[in-house]
Amino acid sequence: MGETFGQRLQERIRALGPLCVGIDPSSTLLASWGRPDSVEGLEFMALAILEASVGAAAAIKPQVAYFERFGAAGYRVLERLLADARDAEVLVIADAKRGDIGATNEAYAAAWLEESSPLCCDALTVSPFTGVGALTPFFSRCVQGRGVFVLAATSNDEGRSVQRARTDRDEAVEDLILRSVAELNASQENLGSLGVVLGATRDRPRFDLAALRGPYLVPGVGAQGATPEQVGRLFERCPEGSVLVNVARAIANTGPERSALRDAVARWRDNLTSFL
Amino acid sequence: MGETFGQRLQERIRALGPLCVGIDPSSTLLASWGRPDSVEGLEFMALAILEASVGAAAAIKPQVAYFERFGAAGYRVLERLLADARDAEVLVIADAKRGDIGATNEAYAAAWLEESSPLCCDALTVSPFTGVGALTPFFSRCVQGRGVFVLAATSNDEGRSVQRARTDRDEAVEDLILRSVAELNASQENLGSLGVVLGATRDRPRFDLAALRGPYLVPGVGAQGATPEQVGRLFERCPEGSVLVNVARAIANTGPERSALRDAVARWRDNLTSFL
Repeated sequence: MGETFGQRLQERIRALGPLCVGIDPSSTLLASWGRPDSVEGLEFMALAILEASVGAAAAIKPQVAYFERFGAAGYRVLERLLADARDAEVLVIADAKRGDIGATNEAYAAAWLEESSPLCCDALTVSPFTGVGALTPFFSRCVQGRGVFVLAATSNDEGRSVQRARTDRDEAVEDLILRSVAELNASQENLGSLGVVLGATRDRPRFDLAALRGPYLVPGVGAQGATPEQVGRLFERCPEGSVLVNVARAIANTGPERSALRDAVARWRDNLTSFL
Repeated sequence: MGETFGQRLQERIRALGPLCVGIDPSSTLLASWGRPDSVEGLEFMALAILEASVGAAAAIKPQVAYFERFGAAGYRVLERLLADARDAEVLVIADAKRGDIGATNEAYAAAWLEESSPLCCDALTVSPFTGVGALTPFFSRCVQGRGVFVLAATSNDEGRSVQRARTDRDEAVEDLILRSVAELNASQENLGSLGVVLGATRDRPRFDLAALRGPYLVPGVGAQGATPEQVGRLFERCPEGSVLVNVARAIANTGPERSALRDAVARWRDNLTSFL
């Protein structure tokens, strides 16, 4: 792993398009697949979606909450998914939105971004409620080939109360996060490994999105209502290969049939590629 | 479980004092105990601290990150700790700081606050970066006897940039959270089951702390520098039994010897009791 996460991600997006396939094995989705709401159902769905994504999407994004609801047994399934994805050379972003004060973040970084951990992924989503400065243990892993996506503006409306609040520099919290991440990426010649999560359903922040020098992970497309056109407009001036768009339910709703799932992945990838 | 979490917690605090014993089995702490940085070391420390807390502290607070760094195997240890705590009738607050958008929070609430889950606890810490409104799935569990502590002001300095930012009502984010939780507790005659995390190292928020109608979980005492006197002053007008003070390292630093650990628990409890 001589390359950085930013470089690897950009290569994948250039080769395979900007689609990230979300893996969200909720009770509702398992029921719609005719599968039990159990670790067996969880494993079946997670591996089926991985299989449909191999060589067809830039990355997968398992939503950790759906594994955690089965405790240790659910985490064993997640470990299996991560190992299979590594073998299949699929990039994995664990959507865990972890975030605490510094000493605890060191332990979360060890859990998700250390080679020796059974949960080790390519990148992790993290939450900055405790301040961007508290996230240093995650950022430190970026020099070891890992990536981090910091929440800036989430796809839900309720998030605006906090994310649009104004700091003592009279800057919106979301702009503070974008600016801080851009500053941390400033020394990078290529695409940096520190990214942000920016919902496609959100208005354009004041920060110039083309200045991040890192990747965007974009939820909100498909079942949550945003269209590929909207994503294209929001990120129109960003570098090629720096925007990764997550689609979960709109693909999984296709059901468990293999070729239908692969068709849905290809359709979303092509649709997104024409706007990004 | 006819009572609410708020009532149970208040009874425990009245009977046993305001101490919550934090369980933070970090590499550093395991090394200082002469134990390996492994699941075996983790289990030894977690169960030893639980044992020292039975009948001596109002609650324990395992920091989930330290279990998660061992993946599924670490979660098995956490499940064992939770089961043993339940058998010993010790209240458990899982310090996981989970928080996402609504559908995902439903899964996190199922993981941590549903009777059928192997990770089920008495209460969970949650992070409001996605907005207090997004946390409804956690709050819904409070009518089933569970509790939630929403981060308002964390004990670290870096948190102020976000937590002191001003909303469009010209209210600090921390005050928005305190006020929102107070509103959700408003219908409660007794102490509500929705609490907040408020660091003892922080300045007093503008919100009148006595008006929360719910419990406070207070980190920052001991190794992080705040004193019991400071906590006493910060919460001086709050109802009896509504303030739970977490102490982790300052107790665990005593080392693994049983009677020394129990002495440390008793000393901190007595010290806190004299100010709260």
